[in-house]
Amino acid sequence: MKNAILKKIEENTVVVGVIGLGYVGLPLAVTFARQGLNVLGFEKSQEKADKVNRGENYIGDITDEDLRSVVETKTLLATTDFSRIKECDAAIICVPTPLDKFKKPDMRFIEASCRDIGRFMTKGTFVSLESTTYPTTTEDFMLPILEEESGLSHGKDFWLAFSPERVDPGNEDYKTDNTPKVFGALDEDGKEVGLALYRKAIKHLYPVSSPRVAEMVKILENTYRLVNISLVNELALLSGKMDIDIWEVIDAAKSKPYGFQAFYPGPGIGGHCIPLDPFYLEHIAKKYDFDLTMIHTAGHIDTLMAHRMTIKITSALNQHKKALNGSKILFLGVAYKPNIDDARESPALKIMDEVVKKGGVVSYHDPFVAQAKTPDGNDFESVSFEHIKEADAVVVTTKHKNVDMIKVIQESKLIVDLCNSVETGTSSAFKL
Amino acid sequence: MKNAILKKIEENTVVVGVIGLGYVGLPLAVTFARQGLNVLGFEKSQEKADKVNRGENYIGDITDEDLRSVVETKTLLATTDFSRIKECDAAIICVPTPLDKFKKPDMRFIEASCRDIGRFMTKGTFVSLESTTYPTTTEDFMLPILEEESGLSHGKDFWLAFSPERVDPGNEDYKTDNTPKVFGALDEDGKEVGLALYRKAIKHLYPVSSPRVAEMVKILENTYRLVNISLVNELALLSGKMDIDIWEVIDAAKSKPYGFQAFYPGPGIGGHCIPLDPFYLEHIAKKYDFDLTMIHTAGHIDTLMAHRMTIKITSALNQHKKALNGSKILFLGVAYKPNIDDARESPALKIMDEVVKKGGVVSYHDPFVAQAKTPDGNDFESVSFEHIKEADAVVVTTKHKNVDMIKVIQESKLIVDLCNSVETGTSSAFKL
Repeated sequence: MKNAILKKIEENTVVVGVIGLGYVGLPLAVTFARQGLNVLGFEKSQEKADKVNRGENYIGDITDEDLRSVVETKTLLATTDFSRIKECDAAIICVPTPLDKFKKPDMRFIEASCRDIGRFMTKGTFVSLESTTYPTTTEDFMLPILEEESGLSHGKDFWLAFSPERVDPGNEDYKTDNTPKVFGALDEDGKEVGLALYRKAIKHLYPVSSPRVAEMVKILENTYRLVNISLVNELALLSGKMDIDIWEVIDAAKSKPYGFQAFYPGPGIGGHCIPLDPFYLEHIAKKYDFDLTMIHTAGHIDTLMAHRMTIKITSALNQHKKALNGSKILFLGVAYKPNIDDARESPALKIMDEVVKKGGVVSYHDPFVAQAKTPDGNDFESVSFEHIKEADAVVVTTKHKNVDMIKVIQESKLIVDLCNSVETGTSSAFKL
Repeated sequence: MKNAILKKIEENTVVVGVIGLGYVGLPLAVTFARQGLNVLGFEKSQEKADKVNRGENYIGDITDEDLRSVVETKTLLATTDFSRIKECDAAIICVPTPLDKFKKPDMRFIEASCRDIGRFMTKGTFVSLESTTYPTTTEDFMLPILEEESGLSHGKDFWLAFSPERVDPGNEDYKTDNTPKVFGALDEDGKEVGLALYRKAIKHLYPVSSPRVAEMVKILENTYRLVNISLVNELALLSGKMDIDIWEVIDAAKSKPYGFQAFYPGPGIGGHCIPLDPFYLEHIAKKYDFDLTMIHTAGHIDTLMAHRMTIKITSALNQHKKALNGSKILFLGVAYKPNIDDARESPALKIMDEVVKKGGVVSYHDPFVAQAKTPDGNDFESVSFEHIKEADAVVVTTKHKNVDMIKVIQESKLIVDLCNSVETGTSSAFKL
């Protein structure tokens, strides 16, 4: 059975199923397909599946040409029919792992994928999860569902592994194929099959001894970032009070030639990874009677950022003898980081909600994001750049490179710069 | 007046006073002297001053030859007579900034240095502090003392600056002369004089806009390390419970080619910087009604490490059906990091104290540290390596490269490896 799939991999006749065609799954599907492997992309959304099959790209990290070429040759085909999992030799899960409203892991997407795969997979299938989740998920959460739904036995009838995605949207240098990939399988055969498969598309694989180690690797990487951004945000707030320019401090600290990595303050932490993943670990830690105090504290800092940034805006308006209530506040940038079109977990949207609650007349401009819905459900459409002239305050929340900051400085009545876009050194809103 | 000192600097006739001949001051004094500048080293300890004047080196980061050569040519002279500060054109303070027993900054050494300098300095003196301290120290703490003691006025009669040491004991690549040096003066003339002086000995200077920015730079660098080591120590403890090898996790995370820097767990944080400096910032933050929650949490983790490591030792002995009370416990390494002879704030010593309290029969072996006093005042002398055979448990607390770990494994009854010295992957004491 193992030799059968290894042979198919070698001969490029293996059929790879990718579950979820989002910012992880679609680039992975295209990367496999570009190597000549037949890829079936499974998507709940008919709209997304149709788009893929028309060759219409909706993910920034792949080129339109790359998608079109693999769709035209039918190497990649998207479908909403999960029963076609039975055609696949491998099933790679790339679904979201969000938090619910109480910041607990929402495992519904992984569970649904496992039920779909379990229901339809045949003997000799290799299954891999790429979604970030707490350690032990693969062994303790997925494995029982897969075995129960399929009636098959791991090791004998199928293999299971965890190999975390490392997608960094907007990164110019590292894409799916050239980012080293960590991989941990449940047994040796699964390791052999999984490595052979991934090696088709990924240049550097880094095998580890178990899925739980691989799960912890991804959480460590993102926890490291949460903790350090939270640290620097807290130091930025203190530095503001002490009349110290934190950006000058960080740039100077970077002159240390060892033992330092720079993180920069901002209006809060956004995106689908850094503000979420560490809480997956905090969740499972409780099962082991363990309190993760660093993650808890970092999360606490981040939770307060939107409120603290609203106070900065209020203080800035106050210097102009204006109240927040009734003032026109234009937010510049709602993407969670520069030069991408993704507003998930964007700190700007949280601040907008709080400003709306306090009576501010809110609008936003973002050349990458045409419309956005805030966590409170407020719907906004990006207004034209010219609106900055009318705003009582322009709040810079994302530092997009195609926004003319010189013009912003010239034409705005008041700038509240939350990410040092203006780079004047003294303009930092953290001093307000 | 400014031109007078600049001329002396240019002509190498400037006399530099270095206050405190410890691990920062002595290398700095030697570095200046090697460039041909006349250096007076001020030391409270007659014993240290005599040693220097006999050319007897006691600091690992300078070579015996370098010290001897500048002593023989009388370019460097050590003295306990602080009235000779009047002979100096510059006074550079390199004294300790410890914490008192309640973890509050102990500013007595900086204060005493400022009083000595203030009492004896003449017009036209450049004063610089290198000791790590909280932002605003130079302006708000030192300046009033210097002006009061001297009757002189800053800017008119003397100049004051802050330029943090970046000494990393045992670092093979970066020494005093080739580590970039951050520098912030109180005014433009002080900046010009200070940069001209330091440039004589230091290859790369990084000027910042004020002493308080320079003070914050150093605290940021060390806070970054405290927070990240504490984070990884906490994750190591959880990983142990989850049967995950944290060292394997960290090594795999290092395969991420961007946005990650590796820190490793251990028995706690030692040395004169990382466990202390951040609390200087926490202290001053209170004056600004600000709670530094990240530093507080990191400090909390570190405070508990000795206790937690004692539990690991107890658990290991328990597997051998032995109680800690009455067992012979040999600690391997009391230096706070590998391959140096410094046991200040060493986590090993704190664990030794706790083991003594619980009835353990404690000894240690460290090829670099002949004797050591614990925080509780217990005095120990390094026993010979052969004693590992008799110990009920050998606790590896520092990973010195000249300790034969293969032999330790062969000859010990039980190893509690707190820093992955054995590198077997599964030996990790954090799993106990």
